[in-house]
Amino acid sequence: MTAGRPLRTNGDRLWRSLMEMAEIGATPAGGCNRLALTEADRAARDLFVRWCEDAACRIRIDTMGNIFARREGSRAGAAPVLMGSHLDTQVTGGKFDGVFGVLAALEVIRTLNDADHSTPFPVEAVVWTNEEGARFSPAMMGSAVWSGAQTREDAHGRTDTASRRVDEELLRIGYLGDHPCVAGPVRAFFEAHIEQGPVLERAGRQIGIVTGIQGIRWLEIIVEGTSCHAGTTPMDARRDPVRAIAEMVPALFDMADRHQPEARLTIGRFNMSPGAYNTVPNRAAIGIDLRHPTATVLDDLTRSLERTVRDACERHGLAFSVRLELDCAPVSFTPDCVDAVQRAADACGFASLRMVSGAAHDAMYVSRVAPAAMIFVPCEGGVSHNEAERARPEDLKAGCDVLLGAILELG
Amino acid sequence: MTAGRPLRTNGDRLWRSLMEMAEIGATPAGGCNRLALTEADRAARDLFVRWCEDAACRIRIDTMGNIFARREGSRAGAAPVLMGSHLDTQVTGGKFDGVFGVLAALEVIRTLNDADHSTPFPVEAVVWTNEEGARFSPAMMGSAVWSGAQTREDAHGRTDTASRRVDEELLRIGYLGDHPCVAGPVRAFFEAHIEQGPVLERAGRQIGIVTGIQGIRWLEIIVEGTSCHAGTTPMDARRDPVRAIAEMVPALFDMADRHQPEARLTIGRFNMSPGAYNTVPNRAAIGIDLRHPTATVLDDLTRSLERTVRDACERHGLAFSVRLELDCAPVSFTPDCVDAVQRAADACGFASLRMVSGAAHDAMYVSRVAPAAMIFVPCEGGVSHNEAERARPEDLKAGCDVLLGAILELG
Repeated sequence: MTAGRPLRTNGDRLWRSLMEMAEIGATPAGGCNRLALTEADRAARDLFVRWCEDAACRIRIDTMGNIFARREGSRAGAAPVLMGSHLDTQVTGGKFDGVFGVLAALEVIRTLNDADHSTPFPVEAVVWTNEEGARFSPAMMGSAVWSGAQTREDAHGRTDTASRRVDEELLRIGYLGDHPCVAGPVRAFFEAHIEQGPVLERAGRQIGIVTGIQGIRWLEIIVEGTSCHAGTTPMDARRDPVRAIAEMVPALFDMADRHQPEARLTIGRFNMSPGAYNTVPNRAAIGIDLRHPTATVLDDLTRSLERTVRDACERHGLAFSVRLELDCAPVSFTPDCVDAVQRAADACGFASLRMVSGAAHDAMYVSRVAPAAMIFVPCEGGVSHNEAERARPEDLKAGCDVLLGAILELG
Repeated sequence: MTAGRPLRTNGDRLWRSLMEMAEIGATPAGGCNRLALTEADRAARDLFVRWCEDAACRIRIDTMGNIFARREGSRAGAAPVLMGSHLDTQVTGGKFDGVFGVLAALEVIRTLNDADHSTPFPVEAVVWTNEEGARFSPAMMGSAVWSGAQTREDAHGRTDTASRRVDEELLRIGYLGDHPCVAGPVRAFFEAHIEQGPVLERAGRQIGIVTGIQGIRWLEIIVEGTSCHAGTTPMDARRDPVRAIAEMVPALFDMADRHQPEARLTIGRFNMSPGAYNTVPNRAAIGIDLRHPTATVLDDLTRSLERTVRDACERHGLAFSVRLELDCAPVSFTPDCVDAVQRAADACGFASLRMVSGAAHDAMYVSRVAPAAMIFVPCEGGVSHNEAERARPEDLKAGCDVLLGAILELG
């Protein structure tokens, strides 16, 4: 790097790339619909590959369709630094979730090319397959297989609602690569991403120094009662699951409130059977998303939840079960990677905030097998997974500059 | 009636008829599936008509498919006494709900025939079309049109999930009659029915003297919030409809508890949008069935419910609406009909209980245009709308004897 002239990315070029990519799968409401392994996903991948080839990168595609675009480094045999995220979106997704991290990586490579700046290690821009999980469950499939958290066979066999398999769809769109999907030596992985929450915007900071990802548990609580006629059955002759749920839900929110600001509890699913006005349900199921950055606290919260459920159900003589649907341990990112991000933000003069990611990202799996960190930029009102998702060009450029800076900080 | 030898129905014959009818649409689990205007409904109607013709009745079918089987009386021009209920069932219905009232009416006619007993008024056994509303909404359609609560045109145009119309299906099964569907002069209507609740069984009584039907309101409460990411959105930055619902639901049950034993409150429906673990819902809707036998109290309870909803939503800054989906005013049956039932039960020596029906029945609509009352008999555990619905032959015979006795009491 030329002394006194710090390397900066081209915010206009980044924005133009984002807007051009957003045309693929564009929705009338201004968002994007690029479900994994659809024609739109293929078109987005093709465009990314073309851009990377134009930037003199060598393309490698693995058996999960993960794309690696490599710019060689100067030191023989050095492990590469990876940067990237995903190109797939939700059905009513936005223009920035995932794609920002991918195109910021490309912009870093373009900037290095423009400055004819050589890094000691290779730099690779990565597209992870099916991060959203909106078409094929589970989410973060490409990075999960790559990091050994899921087998390739399992991932290949997952099907969408039309019973189409992941491997068939990878083949169909031309992205069933032949490189093994497994982590090799990696110097570091950086994922730039919109925050998808309101914390940076509220705090008036431009860069989130992401120190980790909070632990996530999905718990399904099922309460069993006896269905009966709403008109003919006296209140005291009922075994109504809703009576127990009416007690436990306020208690669960109270529990979360006692662990602010870190704990997050969401009841996003509620199903009753048979689901008729005039029938006391025989079964009610609620789905709880419980998060905390500290593993021991998450355990405590889970135990407290189970106790609350048990007490309420026992008071009403109802059978119940609590099933763990998803269990992601809290992740702490690699200190030297986090520090590189912090130093880069400071060097650029951006106001930053150290924070824990509320959402899971590909970096969660990658961090199991490689040093990793994330960079957040604000998005308007914290709105994401929504066609109205918006981010400011200057914030995106700032995030891109920090990504570049963090890589150079690694020296 | 021959003095000293009170007329009694034939319980064995009644039971055999019930069991033969139950073979039509019989389900493997021992119940019946005879949705309105299906082939099974046609077969049940055909069997009923054949039995009535064998009992020398004259059959009349109206434009709603209601069937009237008439045994003439001795006094010229006297208004008939109607008895009956319905032959259609829920998808997983039982052997007794509705059909007992129809076949008890037939058994009364057979008993009168056997004894060569002449009544001053004609006696008619009635089958009301589509009481359950399980295939075509709304419920109690045949009696609603007959009593002027619904227009024939509206009822004829109702469709099932396969878009088949009521009038087309009536025609297809051969029950689109040509008699106008409208109430003429009626001396009285009696509907015998299983209780569908546990009250008689708990009280150890054999006959329910039904004095009326409690008022029913279905209220849909919709609370609007803002959907956001369960992981990235701090608890204090959310507009979560579930927070308001968690406050209102216990308050609503408390309200119902303060009005025991008469008030009944059931939350049988709960829908969240979008319904994902990791998304705070933008909309939650709960469906409430609220009942009370006294109109003014039902009004008070409704107002109190609305206040509870408003307070909770205002505390959380959430928009809401409360929509009245169904509103059936409480019904008081005709005192001279209720008294006739009471006297008949007493004369037979059956232990009886005066009670309000928790469920709506065809008698609800009929009572708008004709003197009416109902007779309840116990069913096991109060279970109904269920293939496991059970009633004891001796209780059914007792109900049938009271039906006969009530008619004769009218003189």
